[in-house]
Amino acid sequence: MTYGVGMRINRGLVFMSDTRTSAGVDNFATTRKMFTWTIPGERKITILTAGNLATTQSLISLLEERSHVVEDRDPSILKQPTMFQVARLVGDTLKEVIAESSPNGQTSDDQFRASVILGGQIGDGKPTIFLIYPEGNFIEISDDTPFFQIGETKYGKPIIVRAYDPDMSFEDAIKLLLVSFDSTVKANLSVGLPFDVEIYEDGSFSSDRHKRVESTDPVYQAISEDWGDALKAAFKGLPSYNI
Amino acid sequence: MTYGVGMRINRGLVFMSDTRTSAGVDNFATTRKMFTWTIPGERKITILTAGNLATTQSLISLLEERSHVVEDRDPSILKQPTMFQVARLVGDTLKEVIAESSPNGQTSDDQFRASVILGGQIGDGKPTIFLIYPEGNFIEISDDTPFFQIGETKYGKPIIVRAYDPDMSFEDAIKLLLVSFDSTVKANLSVGLPFDVEIYEDGSFSSDRHKRVESTDPVYQAISEDWGDALKAAFKGLPSYNI
Repeated sequence: MTYGVGMRINRGLVFMSDTRTSAGVDNFATTRKMFTWTIPGERKITILTAGNLATTQSLISLLEERSHVVEDRDPSILKQPTMFQVARLVGDTLKEVIAESSPNGQTSDDQFRASVILGGQIGDGKPTIFLIYPEGNFIEISDDTPFFQIGETKYGKPIIVRAYDPDMSFEDAIKLLLVSFDSTVKANLSVGLPFDVEIYEDGSFSSDRHKRVESTDPVYQAISEDWGDALKAAFKGLPSYNI
Repeated sequence: MTYGVGMRINRGLVFMSDTRTSAGVDNFATTRKMFTWTIPGERKITILTAGNLATTQSLISLLEERSHVVEDRDPSILKQPTMFQVARLVGDTLKEVIAESSPNGQTSDDQFRASVILGGQIGDGKPTIFLIYPEGNFIEISDDTPFFQIGETKYGKPIIVRAYDPDMSFEDAIKLLLVSFDSTVKANLSVGLPFDVEIYEDGSFSSDRHKRVESTDPVYQAISEDWGDALKAAFKGLPSYNI
């Protein structure tokens, strides 16, 4: 599995994804699942992937036109006029890749299944995020649904539901996602460090705020440990229930 | 779905289950999923069920020998000499019920699938808990695995993993499970109030400490609200992460 989150706050967008890929517990590795494209001053696009690794790698290769020789590459993802058009392009490409692998037509239950979070900003458009399904269709983020998750989503959802605030700072947003990811890692072997983190400030059209958080990262370790203690303290403060 | 937890602490056992049953979002109802049998001074047995409602109701009816007229009933669950033998009986009965519904043999993916948490104490034995699979086999609780969950288990797992302590009081154990259930209810429509809660004190062989927690319960409401605030406060105290 995988765990990936794309979240919108008033200041911009925040993305986080783990890097564990596995075909059974005896065959796992570290793989990047976050991909970015930037044209400074014009567009910034980020994709997080979850699901069959052959499918998602093929998707990214097609989007980057790796079937062309280097000098002929001119990825159409960099030409679409709006994020909505980019979402259509990514959805169509994803659907094609899955259809090629599964000759009988693709369903959500397929072993070739994959999901994608697409976020970014183009020109005058607002920064936005889409969740793209293996069927190629997609939904867009809104004030009522300010974040999308893919992969192993359940363990880390309650804390985001409780602590999300659209006015939060980027620092707090990263902290929130680190806690959500840490809860998931503690409960599920198929999600693992390092994590890729990226923040995108509204109107910046730049991709320089990216970091890979390793398991040895002292701030991550402090957050992980302090969160356990803080939870216990918070828990102690609750009213008692006796029967 | 369902959410049910059986947890062992040094003082005894704690059980909690939700009561929502649904066949699609437009067809849901409240059903008891916690069942207890007691012979004062001799044995106390509690069962939590998750899965296909026809299967679990049939299981309970067979265990209570409801196929017999009232005066002939003499449930064998009340005759087994040890909790291990009770687990075998429940597992075999569960396997039979599922096999009857699915003529081609039963697998875990079956629509008739159901899981059971069985806990209690018989005579000189220690209080213990078993998790019984639809295949009829089962595992027993241990110091390393002091709780079992069935149904919609993921949302509520992180808080139990973090805050469980074998020395905790019954009050704290109930509080912990209420927080775990509250996190699940906030994230998943298929789990709902009221909750059935039961605590069993080592050596008491009694079932009088049982309560149904309604959504209007003021202590539950306070825990639910305070937990959100406490989480936010705990979250604020964590170190910041900037990139």
